[in-house]
Amino acid sequence: MIDETHDPARTSWVSSANGHADFPIQNLPLGVFSPGGGAPRGGVAIGDLILDLSLAARSALLSGEAKAAAEAGAGATLNPLLGLAPSARRALRRRLSELLALGAPDRAEVETWLYPVSGCTLHLPAAIGDYTDFYAGIHHALNVGRQFRPDNPLLPNYKHVPIGYHGRASSIRVSGAAVRRPSGQKKAPDAEAPTFGPSARLDLELELGVWIGQGNALGEPIPIGEASSHIAGLCLLNDWSARDLQAWEYQPLGPFLAKNFMTTISPWVVTSEALAPFRIAQPARPEGDPAPMDYLFGDADQASGAYALDLEVFLSTAQMREQRIAAVRISASAARHLYWTAAQMVTHHTVGGCDLNPGDLLGTGTISTPDDTGLGSLLELTRGGAQPITLPSGETRAFLQDGDELSIAGHARADGYVAIGFGPCTGMVVG
Amino acid sequence: MIDETHDPARTSWVSSANGHADFPIQNLPLGVFSPGGGAPRGGVAIGDLILDLSLAARSALLSGEAKAAAEAGAGATLNPLLGLAPSARRALRRRLSELLALGAPDRAEVETWLYPVSGCTLHLPAAIGDYTDFYAGIHHALNVGRQFRPDNPLLPNYKHVPIGYHGRASSIRVSGAAVRRPSGQKKAPDAEAPTFGPSARLDLELELGVWIGQGNALGEPIPIGEASSHIAGLCLLNDWSARDLQAWEYQPLGPFLAKNFMTTISPWVVTSEALAPFRIAQPARPEGDPAPMDYLFGDADQASGAYALDLEVFLSTAQMREQRIAAVRISASAARHLYWTAAQMVTHHTVGGCDLNPGDLLGTGTISTPDDTGLGSLLELTRGGAQPITLPSGETRAFLQDGDELSIAGHARADGYVAIGFGPCTGMVVG
Repeated sequence: MIDETHDPARTSWVSSANGHADFPIQNLPLGVFSPGGGAPRGGVAIGDLILDLSLAARSALLSGEAKAAAEAGAGATLNPLLGLAPSARRALRRRLSELLALGAPDRAEVETWLYPVSGCTLHLPAAIGDYTDFYAGIHHALNVGRQFRPDNPLLPNYKHVPIGYHGRASSIRVSGAAVRRPSGQKKAPDAEAPTFGPSARLDLELELGVWIGQGNALGEPIPIGEASSHIAGLCLLNDWSARDLQAWEYQPLGPFLAKNFMTTISPWVVTSEALAPFRIAQPARPEGDPAPMDYLFGDADQASGAYALDLEVFLSTAQMREQRIAAVRISASAARHLYWTAAQMVTHHTVGGCDLNPGDLLGTGTISTPDDTGLGSLLELTRGGAQPITLPSGETRAFLQDGDELSIAGHARADGYVAIGFGPCTGMVVG
Repeated sequence: MIDETHDPARTSWVSSANGHADFPIQNLPLGVFSPGGGAPRGGVAIGDLILDLSLAARSALLSGEAKAAAEAGAGATLNPLLGLAPSARRALRRRLSELLALGAPDRAEVETWLYPVSGCTLHLPAAIGDYTDFYAGIHHALNVGRQFRPDNPLLPNYKHVPIGYHGRASSIRVSGAAVRRPSGQKKAPDAEAPTFGPSARLDLELELGVWIGQGNALGEPIPIGEASSHIAGLCLLNDWSARDLQAWEYQPLGPFLAKNFMTTISPWVVTSEALAPFRIAQPARPEGDPAPMDYLFGDADQASGAYALDLEVFLSTAQMREQRIAAVRISASAARHLYWTAAQMVTHHTVGGCDLNPGDLLGTGTISTPDDTGLGSLLELTRGGAQPITLPSGETRAFLQDGDELSIAGHARADGYVAIGFGPCTGMVVG
């Protein structure tokens, strides 16, 4: 729904919002924060400030659905707000956009709801009941498959089934949390027996996260035509992976310890309403690929189920920081390289009856470009570690070393609209 | 810890408890129930009655740790109680055993805390943050492996790694909930392309569930010597599986829709304290098997980490019920056939840093016997559907039909002790 909240002429009296790379007034993403020593509560990012939903909820400046949405967002998790009908989030967005717009009459009161983000702690936006990770980045699947099965890189089900698996919800953390290098079993291909020790092949995976809004009852699938209304918004997601642990453990039931030691997400739910101008057609499938099966094929989803979203990965090492060398961009990818839309993931997830709940999180899988400019993992960037990359400091990296800091950035861009971003998705590896 | 609560001479003034197959006074399992139209609250099963922990928590008959435990168990989920130190649950158990014992002086007050189970609704005992399913039934792994890889049924990692994967927490239901047959993609081996439709190979899996008590912080593994103190208790678990969906979807990331449409558990947490007399040595590994790696090897765990627990599966069809034919036992297995202990599962799960939380649930994997008397799935019982079983009604079953009702029963038995059970773990398949 594209409305006046996306008007590129609208600016905010919060001056840091105007021209802000991530949080102009056209974004207004939802999160959970603690100001100073305060309790966690819902908030909305605007420039370098956070608007406190628990204060907004008590104000006479909000009414009706907008007030109900602010009340649902006033607590320590956004699950109640995510579980509301999309119209409630839309009403809140419209009202906050009005109140924050340059020239709004009630600025004095709204100013009392704002905190500088620099003095706040950001938390997970929701209690994540279940986390599912898909594998919808076809170029990643091809690149990884080529390393294991050169003649047959894509398994026969890939173009029919939005492949996914259940991930670990408890170890998801917001940007900034340190990433402890996991230990586990690993076995070199030529070794007789496995050994135990710290992972020597620690990797990142560039993904998007999909926040579920309203859920479905057990046994009642979400049709493809309704799936997008169950998506509350997106975030950035780094699916840290220990490749040596993964290679030894993953058969026959999939990755386990290789992935569950931690997943980092950006702290803000960039809402479906904010992303509306950046919806694009799902790219046509290559000649010869099967059409999506009926239950996965929706006209609206095909016409506008993908996102015009640029994604970048930056790496900085301890030595680079010491030498004051800026983080180097090691990948520039984009959401349009996904083979399946977020709506197709939602519909596939529920088609057998599985219930989704507000605050569940879906990962898209690693999003790599068809060429080498935007590979979403070191496994791909370094050809399984065989061709380490060279950094501006002269160092090389096959996989991540202690002290390495990884950052993902994401920006939605479209002609005629103000670009919006996701904020940081950063983690430093510690031993 | 074996104490007076296990005294076989102790009987209860709740007469239905004496000789009860599941809930004699030596058991006292924990659950969540609603009496009549009341709100869910914690309870303890005793014979055919349930003791209301929210009423016990308000009584002067409890004090100290026992009272704190009752208070933590008074709400709509047992997560707070499960998160307490084991000593608190032990104190509650000791005090309730005293109060319910024949001849106890305060019977009149305690009687006011009791409800007939027939008038109550049972709920999930905890909000399950994450559910993990292991694959520790080696004979199941062998039987399934033989169907796919006759010459090499066990993968090389099996005897080194307690193989597990993340399951879906949201679709876990307590005994009694109907099991909706899932639809999904499937592909016959000789078919050109997949088709969509209801699963024609719906199966059960006989498992135990392991309830996590106190958790661990992210990045802080639980050593094998401490793992058993993090296990609050056990339940029965049926990991319903759609074999046709599973065969087509499971590579390379493991089962997804084939399992996430529903999981049934028995409603009671049979506590580690109640199970203490039924701990047995982990059976010796066959000659030639590798010893568990150091992090998985604990002297106490080897000496008493397994359970003397009989497990049975019963099947009744619509026609059998119409003809008043009793449910037929199709499998008689036992927990001792697990290759890994529950403590080894806990330690392995956390060794890379993954955090467990109170109320998390681990499935053991399907527990089959080495011979054909106790196969834990129809996939094994019917050799992948090739050899259907014949039922007393004259019907045959390769996989489950609509109207079939599956029940798992479990009983812990040891010489000199009163046997205890888990209560029902039942589900009927509906179309």
